[in-house]
Amino acid sequence: MKITFVTGNSHKVEEATAICAPRGITIVQNDCGYPELQEDDVALVAAYGAAHAADRLGSAVIVEDTGLYIDSLRGFPGPYAAYVYDTIGNPGILALMRDIDDGVGGNDRSATFRSIVGYCEPGIEPITFEGAVTGRIAYAGVGEGGFGYDPIFEIDGVTLASMGEEKNNVSHRAKSFAKFADWLFGRGEV
Amino acid sequence: MKITFVTGNSHKVEEATAICAPRGITIVQNDCGYPELQEDDVALVAAYGAAHAADRLGSAVIVEDTGLYIDSLRGFPGPYAAYVYDTIGNPGILALMRDIDDGVGGNDRSATFRSIVGYCEPGIEPITFEGAVTGRIAYAGVGEGGFGYDPIFEIDGVTLASMGEEKNNVSHRAKSFAKFADWLFGRGEV
Repeated sequence: MKITFVTGNSHKVEEATAICAPRGITIVQNDCGYPELQEDDVALVAAYGAAHAADRLGSAVIVEDTGLYIDSLRGFPGPYAAYVYDTIGNPGILALMRDIDDGVGGNDRSATFRSIVGYCEPGIEPITFEGAVTGRIAYAGVGEGGFGYDPIFEIDGVTLASMGEEKNNVSHRAKSFAKFADWLFGRGEV
Repeated sequence: MKITFVTGNSHKVEEATAICAPRGITIVQNDCGYPELQEDDVALVAAYGAAHAADRLGSAVIVEDTGLYIDSLRGFPGPYAAYVYDTIGNPGILALMRDIDDGVGGNDRSATFRSIVGYCEPGIEPITFEGAVTGRIAYAGVGEGGFGYDPIFEIDGVTLASMGEEKNNVSHRAKSFAKFADWLFGRGEV
């Protein structure tokens, strides 16, 4: 089956396709946009956006929102990961973490990526699927793959930008889309 | 007349009252909240929130949203000023600005505060009133007054947190509320 993915980010479409295509789901991008709430909980952002887009397009849709929560920065940049990336970027994050070492003074460089897929169709409440992965912020950017914060987010010493295809086995977005695809399969629609 | 100000921030209520009370307007706080959009343009955030709150409360309301736009950080933190303050705070802003000097290499510490008052009543389109002030980010926090970024935002060498009552003559929020109060007066409702 086909599902409309409302996003302006073609990297996300590629990652969603890598997960969903083997499960018989074709992802079709639509960049019509949707209102994004300022909410600390990215699940509320995705649910609200999915409901709005489904209502506007009159069809089943998915949206995906990502949050990056850095423990020592009180969760910053959180749900504003995209905006923060577009302004201060990875150099800004590294500057904020300059004095933070792993395990020193109770501080550490731990961080969690959360991805929420929001699904909705007209007349129903939105449904969300979460994928999360915990890692740490590297001391410098490493790797050429992926996009966004991938060069500075590492798991077991390897950044997401250095993983190649392996990223699709471990990332937050791979997990949220796998949950969504499994749910759609369970419904008998695939 | 009385006007309902939907906000959870009592500092903002005090500043609005200082501007509006001499013009015959009584500000009444209501902290019922409203959805805040993720929009780079804080005027859209205020307009959307005012319309939502007016519809929900069934009465005329104002909301106020503030953005802080730091030139050398590509406008960061922009409309997310409140969230950024609550997470990385002024120490985070100063860390991001550590290597930025006035006039060196085309970089500078210029910044603009924008305040938007959004007014709405049921059945009308929201109306917005903007106040802006340009200054610079100080090298360290100075002053005990105000709130938020006031200790690090300076105008002609004096931070907003050091100004005392003078802040109500020059600040972004004083200007936006003065415009709103003048408009209400012109309508003959005060």
